[in-house]
Amino acid sequence: MPNFRLDLCYDGSRYRGWQRLGDSDNTIQGKLEQVLGRMVGTPVEVIGSGRTDAGVHALGQVANFHAGTAMAPQEILTYLRRYLPEDIGVKEVMAVPERFHSRYNALEKVYRYRIFHSDAPCVFERKYVYPYPAALDLGKMEEAAAHLLGTHDFLAFSSLKRSKKSTVRTLREIRLEEVGQELQLTFTGDGFLYHMVRILVGTLLAAGEGTMAPSEIDEIFQTGRRAMAGVTVPAKGLCLMEVQYP
Amino acid sequence: MPNFRLDLCYDGSRYRGWQRLGDSDNTIQGKLEQVLGRMVGTPVEVIGSGRTDAGVHALGQVANFHAGTAMAPQEILTYLRRYLPEDIGVKEVMAVPERFHSRYNALEKVYRYRIFHSDAPCVFERKYVYPYPAALDLGKMEEAAAHLLGTHDFLAFSSLKRSKKSTVRTLREIRLEEVGQELQLTFTGDGFLYHMVRILVGTLLAAGEGTMAPSEIDEIFQTGRRAMAGVTVPAKGLCLMEVQYP
Repeated sequence: MPNFRLDLCYDGSRYRGWQRLGDSDNTIQGKLEQVLGRMVGTPVEVIGSGRTDAGVHALGQVANFHAGTAMAPQEILTYLRRYLPEDIGVKEVMAVPERFHSRYNALEKVYRYRIFHSDAPCVFERKYVYPYPAALDLGKMEEAAAHLLGTHDFLAFSSLKRSKKSTVRTLREIRLEEVGQELQLTFTGDGFLYHMVRILVGTLLAAGEGTMAPSEIDEIFQTGRRAMAGVTVPAKGLCLMEVQYP
Repeated sequence: MPNFRLDLCYDGSRYRGWQRLGDSDNTIQGKLEQVLGRMVGTPVEVIGSGRTDAGVHALGQVANFHAGTAMAPQEILTYLRRYLPEDIGVKEVMAVPERFHSRYNALEKVYRYRIFHSDAPCVFERKYVYPYPAALDLGKMEEAAAHLLGTHDFLAFSSLKRSKKSTVRTLREIRLEEVGQELQLTFTGDGFLYHMVRILVGTLLAAGEGTMAPSEIDEIFQTGRRAMAGVTVPAKGLCLMEVQYP
């Protein structure tokens, strides 16, 4: 059966996240399946590269679906752009080999967290940034980031209680950039656990504010205690930027 | 009585415009007067440099109000930031001479209209741009803009039926800029009539699409016929950028 890859962006503000929860729910996956199902006349399952939580945005989410349709990718694109709500955008539709699987084949993901580092108003960006005017020591944050890099069991940096599946992940890069009044934290890794990026950001902020020493991070990995890591920062500052494939 | 100048930005999406319409209405002026009235304990009248229509945004609106208060500008700023909704931002509060009047003293205004000139998705900017994927001849638009510049009776480029007040205005500059996938049109002039910027944009788009010759603009000025000018483009693409004072 033909397999199609979707490259998506969305404003997650009013959604309950990526993953379908019921029949006519307010999720990104649900909306896509609803429109595609109507398009092909039979139920369609959309596979995402991963779930994004309620309120999290995406500039480069990747998904795929199989459908017995003779429609060309360009026709599917036109149909989707016409019927999807305006806060879900389709950048591209591509015909891909039948075995392509957006989740299993994903090699790396890039997430960005935007901190509005000022007490000035940010009226137009308010749904996409976390306002955090407190003074931050960027050197300490860089130092803390270095302790987080590499392959670790990130269970303590997630909201998972316990997991039968492996919670070992590799964090390849954390980039801190000051862009105007924003501090942008960009994370690249082979996968991220539930709430992991938001807890990593909370932890880096604790280091930046001086309430946690960068070296404490090693202890968090050793003890696996969630309570030692930083808070889970708000969803709205987070955006899935890119998913990389072989 | 002390006089304070407010430098404001707002996302106009959910408002019925600047001008107060009733007692507890959804207008920018109404919201400001409500919060300031509570702050000083007596009714406050906020004077704006001009009205913005329903759905129009501002990055640099200027207003002023008189109030018998001993509060310092910084305290007023803090109070406003605390109690105003998050789509109205206060950039600065300044003590100004008692005679300062944000409307009478305004010399020039700068408005920008953002056209999203692509059929790609614009999920995050969707409330601030007008999607217009049709091909445009920018040379023709520049030519048409040249015909609009200068001092004219702009009645035909407004939604005013007729006016007892003068409808003569001076348009000093129209700048066309391609910024990524956007075409930004920036208008600088001593004042703008009701819907004037949006009709100027509609007229420039008609020139760019070839449905109107740039030279027809002279005829519109001569005949004063609204029907000959372009359509009124949507409010959401428009933003008041700046108000200049002596």
